Amino acid sequence: MDKKTFRFTSTSVNYFFESGISHLKEVVDAKNAIILTDENVFAAHTKKFKNWNTIVLKPGEEYKIQGTVDSVIEQLIEMGADRQTTLIGIGGGVITDLAGYIASIYMRGISFGFIPTTLLSLVDASIGGKNGIDVGVYKNLVGAIKQPAFILQDLQFLNTLPEAEWQNGFAEIIKHACIKDAPMFRQLESHDLNFYIKNKREASSLIRRNVLIKTKVVMQDEFEKGDRKLLNFGHTLGHALENQYELSHGQSISIGMTYASELSRMLIGFKNAEKVPKVLEQYGLPTYALYDKDKVINVLKMDKKKEKDAINFILLEKIGKAVIEKIAIDQLYSTL
Amino acid sequence: MDKKTFRFTSTSVNYFFESGISHLKEVVDAKNAIILTDENVFAAHTKKFKNWNTIVLKPGEEYKIQGTVDSVIEQLIEMGADRQTTLIGIGGGVITDLAGYIASIYMRGISFGFIPTTLLSLVDASIGGKNGIDVGVYKNLVGAIKQPAFILQDLQFLNTLPEAEWQNGFAEIIKHACIKDAPMFRQLESHDLNFYIKNKREASSLIRRNVLIKTKVVMQDEFEKGDRKLLNFGHTLGHALENQYELSHGQSISIGMTYASELSRMLIGFKNAEKVPKVLEQYGLPTYALYDKDKVINVLKMDKKKEKDAINFILLEKIGKAVIEKIAIDQLYSTL
Repeated sequence: MDKKTFRFTSTSVNYFFESGISHLKEVVDAKNAIILTDENVFAAHTKKFKNWNTIVLKPGEEYKIQGTVDSVIEQLIEMGADRQTTLIGIGGGVITDLAGYIASIYMRGISFGFIPTTLLSLVDASIGGKNGIDVGVYKNLVGAIKQPAFILQDLQFLNTLPEAEWQNGFAEIIKHACIKDAPMFRQLESHDLNFYIKNKREASSLIRRNVLIKTKVVMQDEFEKGDRKLLNFGHTLGHALENQYELSHGQSISIGMTYASELSRMLIGFKNAEKVPKVLEQYGLPTYALYDKDKVINVLKMDKKKEKDAINFILLEKIGKAVIEKIAIDQLYSTL
Repeated sequence: MDKKTFRFTSTSVNYFFESGISHLKEVVDAKNAIILTDENVFAAHTKKFKNWNTIVLKPGEEYKIQGTVDSVIEQLIEMGADRQTTLIGIGGGVITDLAGYIASIYMRGISFGFIPTTLLSLVDASIGGKNGIDVGVYKNLVGAIKQPAFILQDLQFLNTLPEAEWQNGFAEIIKHACIKDAPMFRQLESHDLNFYIKNKREASSLIRRNVLIKTKVVMQDEFEKGDRKLLNFGHTLGHALENQYELSHGQSISIGMTYASELSRMLIGFKNAEKVPKVLEQYGLPTYALYDKDKVINVLKMDKKKEKDAINFILLEKIGKAVIEKIAIDQLYSTL
């Protein structure tokens, strides 16, 4: 197995790159492990779950709520889970967020690990220890920051990934390029979604590059006092749209990044504002949406990045370099 | 104010000894603070809450549950609480456990502080950062370990404290004496409950001694890898009884300590097993109870200190010195 250990402020995390789920039994003792997954993943890969204690959830962001947490905790009690148990989330961002959160609070914290099965969870959601659940229209309003013990990658899951999920993942990849990696941005400009779906080697190398970008940012600022905030590029407006308009996460932040790029042009003279929506469209992502300004501003007022009447907004100085700007909510309203 | 700062592994905590709630406004900005308290405390001290945003809960351990967490989170959203907000728990252990837990998960963690109003929360529950809620009969099954920003003491709350609450607190004080402080055990033997209720100066000095005992243990082992486990003396059986038989926390652990002392005599030759129930009785605490052995063992099987088929049990080698012994659940069953 291609194993690398990354040292975060709070703890170390083992990454197993392109290892395959069959290696899971070398990482944890199956007798002391419980898998959390969803019906889609379980139905498409039933054989892989043989001989593992498994809790299967209904799929979808609408189940990333307290009711699901309650039900999983009940099942953990019934299965006799204790402080020696490792909870393993196998799925997309919803499953890894739920698994990480439940493991963070069950018995005041048990060990957990992830096998991300979507492009988005591979390059983003599984990394960095942020977990949580939604409360009404508020995304991740409740949660914790706690690192998994391990992340094991099995790129075979990508073989059954629907195109919409590839688009979802590319939204975060383009985000990484915008805030941290101008050469990768140019590489993305020169290809498109189909190129990566068809070229598994190119996809694999792009995934690893993105895993390392996010990991490096989090290692330097695990508890989001500074640079980690840059990863919220496109997410402020994105989150406000996501649970109100039934957009996917990738679609929402794609619209959010387009808006943030335009705002960057207006406020700090960002010169390549038009390049961001162009590359997003190459990867099948929407860049504009009709929405109710008042509804959106009401959700923005509860954004976790808010400080009283202003929001710490992430803007682009240039491709590959993001900055944090405090913007008054009134001013945002007039630009929406 | 008599302020001391204690450095834990994760963070520093400011203790304000015998400061009085009127000093709270020097510690936090009232505009950015929300108080969590219960109807009993609020009714007895309504004036003290003037000019503070306050959420008032129904009193009692039966409300230390997820339903209460959900309702408080809703109110926090309505009140516009954000990452600059400090949540302040003013009450007994139930309120400080709830406030600490809610602040640990709201927006992935906001700042919080405590004003303990009972003897038990002064000497125990407010210290050390363990928080949580009950799930059915399982005490604190869900929670986190996170330190408050501050603990402010106002011993005036003790003036309205019912006698049963004094007994409750003395259970934890006697526990501290048993595991860490033989001279304090002898001091407790030479007095009784009434002595401390009537002598506020003696009570105050005893409280500070106990605050320092617990603080020292937690500073050395915040995440309970070793010595902090000793604080669970009497709690293993105690917790199994507490939510099944409607005993107070003090009553439950008093019975638990009596049992653990007897077990210490049987298993490791503890010579003063009879002294423990004797001093507990001096402080109005029960030492024996009729209970259903099978029901209790079923709850013990879910104890957080369990490792598969054995429990890490805290025994006494002598008064003032506790040890951890792994005891098989089967063996426990035969001694209950």
